[in-house]
Amino acid sequence: MIILGIDPGIAIVGYGIIEIMGNRYRILEYGTIQTYPNQSTDQRLKIIYDELIELIKQYKPDEVAFEQLFHQKNSKTVITVAQARGVEVLACVAMGLEIYEYTPLQVKQALTGYGRASKIQMQEAVKRILNLDGIPRPDDAADALAIAICHSFTNKFKSEFKMR
Amino acid sequence: MIILGIDPGIAIVGYGIIEIMGNRYRILEYGTIQTYPNQSTDQRLKIIYDELIELIKQYKPDEVAFEQLFHQKNSKTVITVAQARGVEVLACVAMGLEIYEYTPLQVKQALTGYGRASKIQMQEAVKRILNLDGIPRPDDAADALAIAICHSFTNKFKSEFKMR
Repeated sequence: MIILGIDPGIAIVGYGIIEIMGNRYRILEYGTIQTYPNQSTDQRLKIIYDELIELIKQYKPDEVAFEQLFHQKNSKTVITVAQARGVEVLACVAMGLEIYEYTPLQVKQALTGYGRASKIQMQEAVKRILNLDGIPRPDDAADALAIAICHSFTNKFKSEFKMR
Repeated sequence: MIILGIDPGIAIVGYGIIEIMGNRYRILEYGTIQTYPNQSTDQRLKIIYDELIELIKQYKPDEVAFEQLFHQKNSKTVITVAQARGVEVLACVAMGLEIYEYTPLQVKQALTGYGRASKIQMQEAVKRILNLDGIPRPDDAADALAIAICHSFTNKFKSEFKMR
């Protein structure tokens, strides 16, 4: 099973693609899609959509997990980021992927057993679970890998307890 | 020149398509794209994207005008609506359209000369300018027509004063 994790954004979209074979985890790819403030919003949305489609074509994930978006203080930012997230979800559904969503609390709980884990604790968990030499950079890519791992743990839990 | 006006939303997307020949205005089409709460967000986004693409293929607008989204009290709603707006902008840019944005204040000012015009005053202005027998329904479609008219007035103003 191949899982794509996405940390949604407009300037930086983090992605992480992992493969799960039994209890083994393997990174296939991780990184970011970047856009810049000197580009118009519509061009930024198009860049994100096109690059995400390419990524899905290349790695053919079975499922995709997104971090849920929460309201932030800066409402202008939340609108811009939510617009981008809509486009990111659309790219996945257009490519026929099943979409799952997790809150930051769920991701932290799944990886560390503790819903208020620090960023460092989370990144150490990603490193350990994926058996890496170092912490994946940048943070947005590490976050996306964490979301993908959270989804695979949730899948495993559900299948063991025959839940849906 | 054919202009598509869009009143963004997730449950109801209002659209209005007008043709401008000199000083004459003609409605080509108006209506709404609707989605329902029993559909998943990703399915709703896909429906909106696909229907908007079809609409653009059918009427071939030259330019598109969107209402800008503002922060509302209910932050959950604003995130959902902003996600849909991202998909609506993407559909237009994917079809090669130039995208313009107007605040509700700008739309009211353009149509009535008064930035705090009531909904009824706005709808009466739409009816008068487009030479209609009645007020277009539902409100979301009338709003979309108002946005399209606002854009055409702005174009006219710019060309008269050679602005850009």
